[in-house]
Amino acid sequence: MAAWAQRVERSPLQEMLFAAAKPEVISFAMGLPAPELFPIEGLMKACAHVLASDSRSLQYGPPFQPLKRQIVELMAKRKVACCEDQVFITTGAQQGMNLLLRLLLEPGCQVLTEQMIYTGFQQVLEPYQPLALSVPTDPKTGMDVASVASLLASGAHPACIYAISSGHNPIAVSLTREKRLQLVELAREYRIPIIEDDPYGFLNYEDAALPPLRAYDEQWVFYVGSFSKILTPGLRVGWLIVPESLISKLSVVKEASDIDTNTFTQRLVSRFLEQEDIGRHLSMLRDEYRARRDTMAQALREHFPAAAKWETPDHGVFFWVELPPEVKTLDLLANALRNHQVAFIPGQAFSVEASTKATHCMRLNFSHSNPATIRDGIAQLGKLVREAMLLHGAEVEG
Amino acid sequence: MAAWAQRVERSPLQEMLFAAAKPEVISFAMGLPAPELFPIEGLMKACAHVLASDSRSLQYGPPFQPLKRQIVELMAKRKVACCEDQVFITTGAQQGMNLLLRLLLEPGCQVLTEQMIYTGFQQVLEPYQPLALSVPTDPKTGMDVASVASLLASGAHPACIYAISSGHNPIAVSLTREKRLQLVELAREYRIPIIEDDPYGFLNYEDAALPPLRAYDEQWVFYVGSFSKILTPGLRVGWLIVPESLISKLSVVKEASDIDTNTFTQRLVSRFLEQEDIGRHLSMLRDEYRARRDTMAQALREHFPAAAKWETPDHGVFFWVELPPEVKTLDLLANALRNHQVAFIPGQAFSVEASTKATHCMRLNFSHSNPATIRDGIAQLGKLVREAMLLHGAEVEG
Repeated sequence: MAAWAQRVERSPLQEMLFAAAKPEVISFAMGLPAPELFPIEGLMKACAHVLASDSRSLQYGPPFQPLKRQIVELMAKRKVACCEDQVFITTGAQQGMNLLLRLLLEPGCQVLTEQMIYTGFQQVLEPYQPLALSVPTDPKTGMDVASVASLLASGAHPACIYAISSGHNPIAVSLTREKRLQLVELAREYRIPIIEDDPYGFLNYEDAALPPLRAYDEQWVFYVGSFSKILTPGLRVGWLIVPESLISKLSVVKEASDIDTNTFTQRLVSRFLEQEDIGRHLSMLRDEYRARRDTMAQALREHFPAAAKWETPDHGVFFWVELPPEVKTLDLLANALRNHQVAFIPGQAFSVEASTKATHCMRLNFSHSNPATIRDGIAQLGKLVREAMLLHGAEVEG
Repeated sequence: MAAWAQRVERSPLQEMLFAAAKPEVISFAMGLPAPELFPIEGLMKACAHVLASDSRSLQYGPPFQPLKRQIVELMAKRKVACCEDQVFITTGAQQGMNLLLRLLLEPGCQVLTEQMIYTGFQQVLEPYQPLALSVPTDPKTGMDVASVASLLASGAHPACIYAISSGHNPIAVSLTREKRLQLVELAREYRIPIIEDDPYGFLNYEDAALPPLRAYDEQWVFYVGSFSKILTPGLRVGWLIVPESLISKLSVVKEASDIDTNTFTQRLVSRFLEQEDIGRHLSMLRDEYRARRDTMAQALREHFPAAAKWETPDHGVFFWVELPPEVKTLDLLANALRNHQVAFIPGQAFSVEASTKATHCMRLNFSHSNPATIRDGIAQLGKLVREAMLLHGAEVEG
């Protein structure tokens, strides 16, 4: 076995969360969509149609061209202009990021990210062991783009910049329009690709949703999209929007990875998009998730102490809650799981730097649980937070 | 972009085959199963059942435990004793090999293979740039295990040995029982894992099929299985049988790759296995493919010159044909595509060594085309082979 593989194991936190994946646990941990909102009937109809109409749906085969066209149309709803030749279909967004990094990274390179990032991107980086450059995230305006500018001006030359522009995971913030423009301008000026991870871009809860970074530049923004949060994760279909020159290279590394993206579920998604009104489906999801978001915000106001800080997210599926520094959320999680059957992710899971561990922060998912469960779970967590504060002699008010 | 990625492009041969993937071309090139043998009705029933019964079939989720049990039962048909805790479900066999090599290889390591191997395994190796040790393959008895013994005795210490024991791709041979035992004994003695790639093990055409290497050792044989050739490739479900100690490590690298294996198609395969008689399905496939194999053997005898050599395969989906050395099969392919709309893979595509290019060999698939098409395509190829021999002044007889 490779020397590094000796060390490959789930972390204690992962083990704890894995063990907690039971129906009786109220889970605010993972970024799961609500299964009761999956369009089962539409998918059943689509299945029957696909299987009856074309045996190529079960054969090895090239990316399904009609789906590429539909992705172009979907992206147009976000004000992204792209063409089918820029669309690359993947086995979900996670694979999309893997394939991109396979082309972009090499030993000893640098990568620029925020200090708190999606754990899945950390996993994708791991084999390359790049030099991590990181910048803070403002909970109201997003990535500290001024710090990005300073790093680049001081001679850093990362192989890519990783960004979640809308509904950040885990910070639950969307980048302001001004920062979007600045970030894209920096990418252009320094000729550094941005990997824009956008699983939540279609889940916007306010009218004035900003377009993704890809809408501002087609050469230096490599967009990563997914049907997981807007249709279902179980079909494992995602996509990239990249410059045409990358497509044939991606095909080579994709084929080496898993030959084809599921030819059956590609057609299933495509048929669903043809047969159903995706705009109406998205609108239903937004209404439901907005209600859950508002329920969680209300419960946080009621049950968490005044010292807890959070912003109400305009996109996505998470709240990011900052507690007083003496509250250690890893301990809080162990307690919550042991005694109250409630799960969440402690802030430190997302940290790429030893110095900014966010040990007093927590990420809470609001898409997976129904409103009654959200109220119940947040009430229980609030009680634990207050107990933890009292234990440390802090004054609890609010 | 990483320096190496500048060079990532399809090879001229891949481009040629890619361009040839058109319905009007008779393709003996790829290892495609026959789409008219896909059990569409059974899969339709299974789809309806899965979607109606459990919304977890569309959610993120852990490997589907009932499928693991069914894989254990399936392996028992091959005389492999394993347990559910040794089964790891993958997005097809190609991903299975990727995940294993991710754990086994590191920069500068050695890998032991045959001189002619499945191109997909070459692709999996590529990022690691291992030192390739290779041994010949005897077209009647398989891998030259004596050469493996010599290499190991002389101090080679590969990170793994790659083997296709039944229905070799591309050489179309199955390893003798004696060689199976010797190879497994070497793996044990030198403590080197064998990666046993077994997509064709269930497609045996003679009664006395030998069990895979995994039947002889459970510690040093890492088995790679797939539903692609025995059910359909489009569902992208495969499996590994490995020592239990590897499962949690595989889970970590799997999650980083694409999070979950398609939760929907895992359940679809599982439901199909529950609902249908897989033994009968396999028996039908064997009968159909045996008939196609015999048709191709007959056509080769009729239309290819006597100087062409091949063995009739007892497993799998390929013939390996050796032509007189002056016939260059890469040129023959270009000619066949341009003038006769017939495709195959020239031997050199499979070569891992510069010195053994097999430029006069060809791999012919017999599973994808129906018997009439096989007769037609082989007649056309036979004509071209004879022309090529005459061009080089060879004597054509037979």
